[in-house]
Amino acid sequence: MAAFPDDFQDQLTLLMRLRRDVRRFRSDPVEEALVTHCLDAFRLAPSVGLSETWRLVRVQTPAARAAALANYKQANAAALAGYGGDEAADYSALKLSGMEEAPVHLAVFSDESSDKGRGLGAQSMPEMRRYSVVCAITLMWLRARAKGLGIGWVSILDAQALARRLDVPDDWVLVGYLCLGWPEAEGETPELETLGWEERRRDLPIETR
Amino acid sequence: MAAFPDDFQDQLTLLMRLRRDVRRFRSDPVEEALVTHCLDAFRLAPSVGLSETWRLVRVQTPAARAAALANYKQANAAALAGYGGDEAADYSALKLSGMEEAPVHLAVFSDESSDKGRGLGAQSMPEMRRYSVVCAITLMWLRARAKGLGIGWVSILDAQALARRLDVPDDWVLVGYLCLGWPEAEGETPELETLGWEERRRDLPIETR
Repeated sequence: MAAFPDDFQDQLTLLMRLRRDVRRFRSDPVEEALVTHCLDAFRLAPSVGLSETWRLVRVQTPAARAAALANYKQANAAALAGYGGDEAADYSALKLSGMEEAPVHLAVFSDESSDKGRGLGAQSMPEMRRYSVVCAITLMWLRARAKGLGIGWVSILDAQALARRLDVPDDWVLVGYLCLGWPEAEGETPELETLGWEERRRDLPIETR
Repeated sequence: MAAFPDDFQDQLTLLMRLRRDVRRFRSDPVEEALVTHCLDAFRLAPSVGLSETWRLVRVQTPAARAAALANYKQANAAALAGYGGDEAADYSALKLSGMEEAPVHLAVFSDESSDKGRGLGAQSMPEMRRYSVVCAITLMWLRARAKGLGIGWVSILDAQALARRLDVPDDWVLVGYLCLGWPEAEGETPELETLGWEERRRDLPIETR
């Protein structure tokens, strides 16, 4: 099996370095063809037993977007209440979602009731269905960044309440709520590191058995 | 933020198309520098709140490898027992892991007790820690394939029993057990599709709210 050219590999590393979780978007629209290009990453993604349990919902009516934003604000207020003193001040100074500006919102679910793939590989580890959806989101993230687009993954949410509000089937579990759009800036450094909340490790410890 | 060149994007799509879950490996060793190159993908991966909860264990002693293989065989026998008739025959004809041949085995855990990142983004959705580990595995998968290497993700396992057997801390949850090595063949079609177990969807339905 052939390796890809060295210059491609270097660019792939650069792509991974520049892939950020984006919370600061310009509000310009994203052409539909580009949105489709990003979403098509799902069709290239692995899934346990070829179960392909991903289910995609574009959240685009003003009412649905407002409900998602309200859900985030409530969850963020609850998270803030868990911090005290300086840490609370630091937390509240962070911008943790670009939901108000990002032109495209996508709620990505896993249909836990699907029998596609006939349960292969998911009997022992049913979480593999959701993990497969995460793999697909990761491919989309890279594909979007290669186009100059940014994705922000919002996890400060009451996922069950949001699923109910979006009126999806009971067996659909929310895996990721994604904002897609044109970032205000690019960079190699995560914003949480720039703002002093947390640093990335420079090493990668590996144990042996 | 600049887009990557068109030819890079085309190659990236090809990489995603050729990324397979590999179960048929040659047994030749993989140079350590290449293994390190693949593992370094973790250092480029996103993680909720920069929590970086991934914990890596190389499974390389004959005793540890044999224990992992036995764990798989038992889980696979249990999975087979869930099928009847023709489906059981079809299932038992599948090769679902390359654990015996793959030179490199890697158990990837998420440390659910880590307070790195101070809980940011994971209070409302604690599963985001494990999802972040899946993002990292996905990057490694692409990076390995770009080198001509294959990865097989084994999920037919009793994850808790394997974690105990590998003697990792109680708070480490097994996210993925990965086989890494040189594939026997390359292809765009998943083996489960070639062998008639399941097909990929050609479409991608998207709902709107």
